[in-house]
Amino acid sequence: MNTQQSYRLSNRMSHMDNSVIRVGDKAIGGGRLAVIAGPCSVESKEQILELAKNVKECGADFLRGGAFKPRSSPYSFQGMKLEGLELLKQAGKETGLPIVTEIMSADMIGRFVEDVDVIQVGARNMQNFELLKELGKTTKPILLKRGLSATVDELLMSAEYIMSEGNSNVILCERGIRTFETYTRNTLDLSAVLAIKKLSHLPVIVDPSHAAGLWWMVEPLAKAAVAVGADGIMIEVHNDPANAKCDGQQSIKPERFKSLMDVLRKDIS
Amino acid sequence: MNTQQSYRLSNRMSHMDNSVIRVGDKAIGGGRLAVIAGPCSVESKEQILELAKNVKECGADFLRGGAFKPRSSPYSFQGMKLEGLELLKQAGKETGLPIVTEIMSADMIGRFVEDVDVIQVGARNMQNFELLKELGKTTKPILLKRGLSATVDELLMSAEYIMSEGNSNVILCERGIRTFETYTRNTLDLSAVLAIKKLSHLPVIVDPSHAAGLWWMVEPLAKAAVAVGADGIMIEVHNDPANAKCDGQQSIKPERFKSLMDVLRKDIS
Amino acid sequence: MNTQQSYRLSNRMSHMDNSVIRVGDKAIGGGRLAVIAGPCSVESKEQILELAKNVKECGADFLRGGAFKPRSSPYSFQGMKLEGLELLKQAGKETGLPIVTEIMSADMIGRFVEDVDVIQVGARNMQNFELLKELGKTTKPILLKRGLSATVDELLMSAEYIMSEGNSNVILCERGIRTFETYTRNTLDLSAVLAIKKLSHLPVIVDPSHAAGLWWMVEPLAKAAVAVGADGIMIEVHNDPANAKCDGQQSIKPERFKSLMDVLRKDIS
Amino acid sequence: MNTQQSYRLSNRMSHMDNSVIRVGDKAIGGGRLAVIAGPCSVESKEQILELAKNVKECGADFLRGGAFKPRSSPYSFQGMKLEGLELLKQAGKETGLPIVTEIMSADMIGRFVEDVDVIQVGARNMQNFELLKELGKTTKPILLKRGLSATVDELLMSAEYIMSEGNSNVILCERGIRTFETYTRNTLDLSAVLAIKKLSHLPVIVDPSHAAGLWWMVEPLAKAAVAVGADGIMIEVHNDPANAKCDGQQSIKPERFKSLMDVLRKDIS
Repeated sequence: MNTQQSYRLSNRMSHMDNSVIRVGDKAIGGGRLAVIAGPCSVESKEQILELAKNVKECGADFLRGGAFKPRSSPYSFQGMKLEGLELLKQAGKETGLPIVTEIMSADMIGRFVEDVDVIQVGARNMQNFELLKELGKTTKPILLKRGLSATVDELLMSAEYIMSEGNSNVILCERGIRTFETYTRNTLDLSAVLAIKKLSHLPVIVDPSHAAGLWWMVEPLAKAAVAVGADGIMIEVHNDPANAKCDGQQSIKPERFKSLMDVLRKDIS
Repeated sequence: MNTQQSYRLSNRMSHMDNSVIRVGDKAIGGGRLAVIAGPCSVESKEQILELAKNVKECGADFLRGGAFKPRSSPYSFQGMKLEGLELLKQAGKETGLPIVTEIMSADMIGRFVEDVDVIQVGARNMQNFELLKELGKTTKPILLKRGLSATVDELLMSAEYIMSEGNSNVILCERGIRTFETYTRNTLDLSAVLAIKKLSHLPVIVDPSHAAGLWWMVEPLAKAAVAVGADGIMIEVHNDPANAKCDGQQSIKPERFKSLMDVLRKDIS
Repeated sequence: MNTQQSYRLSNRMSHMDNSVIRVGDKAIGGGRLAVIAGPCSVESKEQILELAKNVKECGADFLRGGAFKPRSSPYSFQGMKLEGLELLKQAGKETGLPIVTEIMSADMIGRFVEDVDVIQVGARNMQNFELLKELGKTTKPILLKRGLSATVDELLMSAEYIMSEGNSNVILCERGIRTFETYTRNTLDLSAVLAIKKLSHLPVIVDPSHAAGLWWMVEPLAKAAVAVGADGIMIEVHNDPANAKCDGQQSIKPERFKSLMDVLRKDIS
Repeated sequence: MNTQQSYRLSNRMSHMDNSVIRVGDKAIGGGRLAVIAGPCSVESKEQILELAKNVKECGADFLRGGAFKPRSSPYSFQGMKLEGLELLKQAGKETGLPIVTEIMSADMIGRFVEDVDVIQVGARNMQNFELLKELGKTTKPILLKRGLSATVDELLMSAEYIMSEGNSNVILCERGIRTFETYTRNTLDLSAVLAIKKLSHLPVIVDPSHAAGLWWMVEPLAKAAVAVGADGIMIEVHNDPANAKCDGQQSIKPERFKSLMDVLRKDIS
């Protein structure tokens, strides 16, 4: 079932150098660790603005925040949607941080292209091929997360769906896979980062927050991600995790994020 | 992580009797085994019409056939799309069989509602929540396939996305899950049929073709599905599997389908 | 990683007919469904004798009962050990049923060869190669259970360990594999029965009790096992499941076992 | 299914400080990274002696080498057995490195206690409870590897089997788990290191060679293991991987091991 010969545009053979995806004056890939941080979801104007300032001060490069939230249950909080997007955009503008947020349907692409700096495709939509193809027609950087049980092969083929439509600004993200182990929410697969970098020239980032689902694992797993050569990390930061509207138990507080950044930036420089 | 209390509309507690989904003069649920058969994808007018006649003669209740195909690679055959849908519709009309085919994006819903009798949501889109919500606004029967690594809980919550928008015509489908075993394409999980019937009143069918990925396993697995109480089965039938445009190795020939039907219908009556 | 060419003695190519393993006047393989039934563990003289009579009356061919119990925790009930073995032997003698029980270490082989009719190797010891080799030096029928995450390939290679030492009386057992799904204890993989029968001439039985871990799934899964062509089934029966010393929730009561047997024997004859 | 309350002797609640397992003048746990290195299997006197000198020079603390090899197939090389053990012992003596090697059956314990410094229990025997109990009656350090599909809970319960017999010198080892991903041999689960350290006071090491099964992943994964706080690493080193009798593709050459050690020792000091 090796489809390696089928990668074309994402294949390292077609582009020996590592790709660098530029976003304004920032970049993902190319040597400097890119740090994307922010809350799981935008909850209010104050919350997102305060967190944006916090993570910026600590040295984050990008602000993340969910406006449209894919939840297993329709009865769970679904995000602030367009209002959340607007708040995220304002927080980005005020801090100068480019923003990253998840898209859930193709009909929002126009709005996202206008307002968002990096469009995220979540794990559950990794094989929503129609969405991928439509995103391929834009020139926006796309952050494509690995599906819960997607192989590295399949992740690269999904990247190929975007690239074959003309958009080569694809960033891949390892966020844990589903296994029999229930102690953690998912099992972070750092070998996948190495496999992807062998097979492809695209940059790869790691999301230790979703992988582990436990805030106290985020820092050591982030360091491990750097150790295997990830191009960036994506971290959930919340000022009040106990009352977060989603995923509070995997979010770290700003002060802990600061100490993580101090360690990571020191290791690199 | 038990979200059982969160099922509302799909929950057996809210509807003690088994639901029966009616499609014209056919039904899924309610005691008689529903058989959906046809090729993986529509390939030509002759092919789909011949197969439609074949499966009808053998006693199939529904005609299946892919027009829009979700393939891991963008370079694989993607289906005949609208042309395929048209041919499928004609074959359905000529044989009187209601048709079942997969939808891949919300912008096709209008067309599908008009032309299709049962709209299938594939495994890869089981958590494409925006698509589910849009389908929930129609009254069409929806055949919702279990995701590759979705728990029974998550499958029911996805049904809930459709039902909470107003459409309670949901049929669930077990089609194998992803495990470490590589001999079969997926691992058919027949316990899931039992679990779903315990938790929910919705009908459940089984797709042994996709589960095993091996044509010679289809017949015994179909019989096993009936043994655990599945409300229906979905079988890939092709007149020339060796040259099928997709999934040939999991398709059975019409003569074998006939003998399977003879066995199944005898067991039941 | 296909090691199919490495099967020698278990390979169907080396022995086109199905093997039949004879145990006294009983047999496993060869067309008639073999039924092994009894409690998870021997708990007292009265318990095992009563159950032995019960299952015999219902038509079971073999009496099972654990004397040495492999438990995840050393603080859980470990079985009545030699005393349990003695009680099981007496119950077998009194009812005329051959007995099946699990061995946990090579130093017990002498005793088991003398007292036991079919020696079971549990899932956790499927790759305890030293034990397999020692069992290969006897002529006793060995019931080899599939490991929790063993592939069909690996199961057959473990059979090969026994057979290459000279003992070809090997019966294989599918008992569920470990997956991400937590509703059931394991995921019963009935495709494995089909795969094994394709690759090998050895008989295969199914243990729906351990697979599902839920008593109410045992009957339908047993029927499904018969539907795919299993040579036998292994069923946990207990007269007082609520107070069983282990695995009570997956044990059925004698009256339910009787009705299962009525159905199974009717289907076959 | 949380059995956390069942850990007794391995439980951090019973022993708040990290345990340090002493082996001669070496230690595992306690801050300094322990490095265990050597070939998958002992192949000849020259091979093991040369490799022992090599890894010692590079700064390894322990010499590993398989004498008894658990192989999926009985027709694969099974190790040099007692002869291999003798050669490993001599190589250990000549270099002053304590030796680590795998035991496969309880009847070898006497010999292992005499000749071996750390007795390894392999993944396939993690739930060979009789072997664990017998090892619990010695005072030898036991290196217990996580089973292919064992949860962290189960690994700790297996440690408990050893400890409850009186031997608290247990070192745990994460060596990758079995998942659906086939690019790597197993999926290294570094979160497990964090989970174990939270739940238990026992030291944990990581085996990146077996986890990935690919030599070029060993170095970055070893660094990641250090980043999450592993107490040691276990590395397969071979002077001629292309001709190794087993696992050649996951073994690194001595020169690469040297550069890995330079990096690791620098990071720590």
